[in-house]
Amino acid sequence: MTDIATLGEFGLIDRLIQDIELMQPSSILGCGDDAAVVSYPQGMQTVVTTDLLLEGVHFDLTYTPLKHLGYKAAVVNFSDVVAMNAKPRQIIVAIGLSSRFGVEQVEELYSGIRTACAAYGVDLVGGDTTASLNGLTISITCIGELEPDRISKRSGAKPTDLICVSGNLGAAYMGLQLLEREKTVFEGMERSEDFQPAFEGKEYLIERQLKPEARIDIIEMLRREQILPTSMIDISDGLSSELLHIAHSSQVGVRIYEDRIPIDYQTALMAEEFNLNVVTAALNGGEDYELLFTAPLALADKLQNLQDIHLIGHVTEASLGCALVTRDQKEITLQAQGWQAYPQR
Amino acid sequence: MTDIATLGEFGLIDRLIQDIELMQPSSILGCGDDAAVVSYPQGMQTVVTTDLLLEGVHFDLTYTPLKHLGYKAAVVNFSDVVAMNAKPRQIIVAIGLSSRFGVEQVEELYSGIRTACAAYGVDLVGGDTTASLNGLTISITCIGELEPDRISKRSGAKPTDLICVSGNLGAAYMGLQLLEREKTVFEGMERSEDFQPAFEGKEYLIERQLKPEARIDIIEMLRREQILPTSMIDISDGLSSELLHIAHSSQVGVRIYEDRIPIDYQTALMAEEFNLNVVTAALNGGEDYELLFTAPLALADKLQNLQDIHLIGHVTEASLGCALVTRDQKEITLQAQGWQAYPQR
Repeated sequence: MTDIATLGEFGLIDRLIQDIELMQPSSILGCGDDAAVVSYPQGMQTVVTTDLLLEGVHFDLTYTPLKHLGYKAAVVNFSDVVAMNAKPRQIIVAIGLSSRFGVEQVEELYSGIRTACAAYGVDLVGGDTTASLNGLTISITCIGELEPDRISKRSGAKPTDLICVSGNLGAAYMGLQLLEREKTVFEGMERSEDFQPAFEGKEYLIERQLKPEARIDIIEMLRREQILPTSMIDISDGLSSELLHIAHSSQVGVRIYEDRIPIDYQTALMAEEFNLNVVTAALNGGEDYELLFTAPLALADKLQNLQDIHLIGHVTEASLGCALVTRDQKEITLQAQGWQAYPQR
Repeated sequence: MTDIATLGEFGLIDRLIQDIELMQPSSILGCGDDAAVVSYPQGMQTVVTTDLLLEGVHFDLTYTPLKHLGYKAAVVNFSDVVAMNAKPRQIIVAIGLSSRFGVEQVEELYSGIRTACAAYGVDLVGGDTTASLNGLTISITCIGELEPDRISKRSGAKPTDLICVSGNLGAAYMGLQLLEREKTVFEGMERSEDFQPAFEGKEYLIERQLKPEARIDIIEMLRREQILPTSMIDISDGLSSELLHIAHSSQVGVRIYEDRIPIDYQTALMAEEFNLNVVTAALNGGEDYELLFTAPLALADKLQNLQDIHLIGHVTEASLGCALVTRDQKEITLQAQGWQAYPQR
């Protein structure tokens, strides 16, 4: 491990941002100044979002390779921009590092961030590092480009609108359970034993947890199909929380159907193995980064025929509340996950 | 102290962002969605910068009231935008909180941020909070508006340009020394003793440390006087580091004169009391948030007559290096502060 002090602050930043090329015509000024400068074509609006990721709360380096962490940290920000129905174009990265991180580790993290940028056509326009007392802190700001008449806020859902979700849910949560289990096994072993985590056949779940993707393909498809969501949000905290956000912002109620929630068979198998309720995983698991959106009822036929889009329910008057209709026709009130319990120090 | 858990996550955010009004016509969508949306008039460019502030590294809550911390955290971001010769218009705030912070503490911090926003005409367009294992983490993103033909990068300085600085230097550092001394005295006392810090007559130094300002008045004056800096940076790490940034980015050398460095008499008195070299404080102390800029030699007469602007040296060919000329005509090579030493855990 190369001590960061050997490079000096200028040296570390220079090394991390060397050979970064700006690909987007909208990136006017990139890394190396007091601020980045962007400029979108006339008539376009600018979307900006920031995420703060803290070691021990948002990620566990025991089972998260730094390169994957960098990739995920960038992608979850892209996902917030996509959830506005906008295209991510630039990111700015600020990292706090405790002394247990060396130059190679920071490079690994940056390599993941840069891989994500390359995959999504996003420019890295600002990078900064600072010392930290405890662990790793990552703050990423994503800047995106929005056609004003395509904005999808949380607040536009109307009664009778359809509720749609992309992809499938609960897989990232099952991947996390799997990683946590292997961590426990690993920690209980003698140092000399050769540890091989039992992930065969479960790569999909691990990948959903460690390498999520932002569904930019979905917003592109909706655009091609001339479908404008009335409201949209990405599923970071779980379907239940996100539905409540839309209901709260739009002042409506929602009704979703258990048998309509899209769940991959691997997620279902794993839930069985862990003796967990798979619907709970989908409702409260989070980190799927799928898109949840509403659209006018008149678009039902069109939406039903779109690949990877699932109609899971409909919007109601606010007075009807927010409920899940189970397979046996019972109604269960949707609950917010609430403030995440503080881990004990 | 009200436990954050009693409000829930929705409740806390709702409480923090309640009654926030958007004042800037460019703020299209504020708090409460996946991202903020801004739109500047045709032809204007967008400036974006992020700062990460960590407890124990960037601030010490022993002597920093949370309201002041919020104010400062916002202002240092405004300062980065101002250093591009742009106007700050919006900020997004993300905060990580350990369990020792309650609702009242977060409100104090936000009250400082909102005071700064009101003072500078900046809209708070995004706010988020998350749990943290250790202490307080603040990440602020500032978005600003730039006239493309007024951008001042670090890279535009040319040999023979004048080097100018606003205000005075070293005061924030002396304020920090004063606070650190009182902290030591306080920690050495019995609990029962009545502690009154000895700050009388030194309020200016304390204020420079705890409540810095972004010199938006300076860029407005330069604009009125039709002066366009060839390069500009704000002094966060100390004059020496910032000069080296400009020299590095512009591929030039710099020569500054000790007797030209503006120092307030209170800074000088305090340095004497502490037996510290006041020039070292100005060169390496940092946190003054004054503007350092270069301008063509032909503007010398004009610049000399401007209030609060000081000509401290000139730009040279790169081969001449970066030097301070002392009062007795000796040349001292300017040193980078380098990577901040990691505090010991």
